[in-house]
Formats: sequence, C-alpha cells, structure tokens
Amino acid sequence: MNRKAVVLLSGGLDSATVLAIAKSEGFDCYALSFDYGQRHSAELRAAERLAVSLGAIDRKCIHLGLDAIGGSALTDEAIAVPNVLQEGIIPVTYVPARNTVFLALALGWAEVLNATDIFIGVNAVDYSGYPDCRPAFIEAFQTLANVATKAGVEGLRFKIHTPLIDLSKSDIIQLGTALGVQYAETVSCYSADDYGRACGLCDACRLRKQGFDAAGLQDPTRYMA
Amino acid sequence: MNRKAVVLLSGGLDSATVLAIAKSEGFDCYALSFDYGQRHSAELRAAERLAVSLGAIDRKCIHLGLDAIGGSALTDEAIAVPNVLQEGIIPVTYVPARNTVFLALALGWAEVLNATDIFIGVNAVDYSGYPDCRPAFIEAFQTLANVATKAGVEGLRFKIHTPLIDLSKSDIIQLGTALGVQYAETVSCYSADDYGRACGLCDACRLRKQGFDAAGLQDPTRYMA
Repeated sequence: MNRKAVVLLSGGLDSATVLAIAKSEGFDCYALSFDYGQRHSAELRAAERLAVSLGAIDRKCIHLGLDAIGGSALTDEAIAVPNVLQEGIIPVTYVPARNTVFLALALGWAEVLNATDIFIGVNAVDYSGYPDCRPAFIEAFQTLANVATKAGVEGLRFKIHTPLIDLSKSDIIQLGTALGVQYAETVSCYSADDYGRACGLCDACRLRKQGFDAAGLQDPTRYMA
Repeated sequence: MNRKAVVLLSGGLDSATVLAIAKSEGFDCYALSFDYGQRHSAELRAAERLAVSLGAIDRKCIHLGLDAIGGSALTDEAIAVPNVLQEGIIPVTYVPARNTVFLALALGWAEVLNATDIFIGVNAVDYSGYPDCRPAFIEAFQTLANVATKAGVEGLRFKIHTPLIDLSKSDIIQLGTALGVQYAETVSCYSADDYGRACGLCDACRLRKQGFDAAGLQDPTRYMA
C-alpha cells in the first residue's frame, strides 16, 4: 500500500508541479484547495481539473472566510494588485498567515486520513518577500505538527515536504514538464478572468512568463486579448 | 492607547472568562469566532452576545468548512457525542488540528490589526486528552508565529496568552464571576438546542456542572426539560 500524502493544490503552476512530484515519489495524493475569497477563483476550477489529470485519489475544497479579516490585495477589494515587482519588501499580495492557516487545515485532514506527509509548493527564491515561504517557517510548522496532533503525541513524525523551496521558476517548469504537467491547465494570474485567462501584467504573470523563457519552453498560458 | 489583543471566543464558559481577563488586563479586545460546522451553533449566538456584554471593540466570525474533512463528533454527523468521560484517551469530540487552525486565523487577524497578543482559553486540566491544549503546543505555536509573519520578521514578538491553562473549572468560574462574567449567557454543551439549553449529559456539561458545584456557586445553566 502506498503512503498517503496531503498535497496543497491551489491550481497554480507551483502546486501542480508539487502534486506531480508527490505522485512520482509513490504517494497516494489527497489534494486540498481553499476557497478563501481570493479574487482569482478561476484558480479553483483549475485545481479541480488538475487533481483529476494528475491522479489525486481525492480532492477537497475547504471554504475559508479569510475575506472577513482582509489585509491583502488578494482578498480585499480595497487594495489594488500591483503590476510592478517590488524587491525586498513584503508585497500587498501577501495574505496574513495564509500558509500557517493552509498547513493547519492540511494537518487536520492528514490526521483524519492517518497520513503524516504534507506537500506544499512554497518557494524561497521568487517569493522571498513572504515570511511564510521560508525554510525557518516550514521547520517551525513541522515542530508544531508533532506536538499539535494525536499522531504526533503517539510518536509518529510529520514531514512537511517543500520540493520547490530552492528551485527557480525555470527549474520548476522543467521538472514539471518532465513529469507530464500540462501547464496550460494551471492558473497563476492574480487577476485571471472567469475563463482562466491571465492578465500578463501582475507579479505572478511576470514570474511565470520569465520562467518559461528561461526554461527555453513555449509559454502555454492563455492571455486576455 | 491600549494594546490590542485578538481573543478567541467560542461562546463557552472558558473563552468568555478569557475575554473578561484580557479586558481586565487593559487590552482592547478583538473577539474572533468560527462557524466551522459545529453542531452546537447556539454557541455562536452566545459569542455574539458575550462580545458585546464583555466590551470587545470588534468581533468577527470566520466561516470555516471543517466539516469537509470530518473526523470529529463535533463536525461529523456520523460520529456520536459520548455521554461518558473517558480519561487518558483523546476523545472523539477532538477536532483534528482545531486549535492550530484557530490560532493561525487569529494570527492572521492580529497581523491585520498590528496586534501581537492573542488570547486562547485552552486548559490542560480538564482537556488533558487534547494534544492542542498543552503548554508544549502553545510554545510551539508562539515560535511559529514569530517566523510566520511580517511583524515577526520585523522583530516584534507574538505572545499567546493562556490564562486558564493551569486552572480547574472551579477556579475559572470563580475568577470569571469576580470579573463580572454572566455565565448564564455562555453555552458549553456539545448538543445544545437552538435556544442554547444544555443536555446536562455530555462531557462539557458534566465538567461545567462539577465546576459550579466545586466553586460553591449556583449553576445558572439553562437545561433542557
């Protein structure tokens, strides 16, 4: 019997690659998405398709009212999504404590499934401005998981897998392409339209486009006219 | 100006006491509740009333689809709420990773408010069976908070306050009574009816009743006929 893993799947390029990696490592994958009032809900439909095409055993989408607390351009209509990469500062697209919340819910599902492996597509290269994408955060969460849960108390050890953490966008795209990820199915754009077409201007679009260029691969992204 | 604190407020006896304590310590209190598919939604209406009567500055209720992952008698209709206290084992009323999820969301709101103080009514005496009610869990979460957030990265230090952690139910009730908490307004019962009346039989009811008895105070709980 394969080991089970909970894989956080947003529907973007990174998490699709992570799902393909987890599967290639022999895990039975349980994909977890969140409907958290994000502007780009096309991402959620992409996650649904990707869970099927990348062979997840099950997929759940948890509704999460993050818009109640606001504080991010991704969940608060009053904050504009910027079109310029700002280095060295935490971007307004940062959602307060998002990965803490997402990993906590993944941990809850892992407990129900009797799984101790969780995969998350954090990346310390492109998203160095996000505190909850750094190795120190992941280590602290892993420590927490082992004291927070029944399984941990009973001696099992949780592992938070971050296979993308040191990879460039170009590395990620090359790896995923080798594993058969159809990137046309993924949505990265913060302002994607209802058809999942990308704006081509926001941070996420620029990083993605640069990644395909650097990988020497054709960008399969569908852009708005 | 007072310091701000996010206070987790379920509507039960413990969290109402915590809100009164935070207020008595001079914090401006922001009460946070969760609608997580719990059976006892009378608790939520109690939280709403308590936030007002105990002088919270603001109150938010975050919708959280924990029922999607199941695994607890409190969120899964297929699991019965037991009427007998079981010592030394983790009860079926344990919700997987619940306090991790709740604290993560409190942390998110604290970031938005520029607050670094979070209050939670965990108790290691009565709920020793819950892994996420122990001091080791709270310490691990505090460590996590400081690496997970913008404020933490910028050098601020989060403090997770657990004023009830070593108190008996009787101590809690005496303290809260001295601070003016109207316990008739609180709902502890896992199977409370729509009017907030308690069953008198479940774990939570028994602990509560024993607490009033031990404190030598009249139990103001409204029970079903």
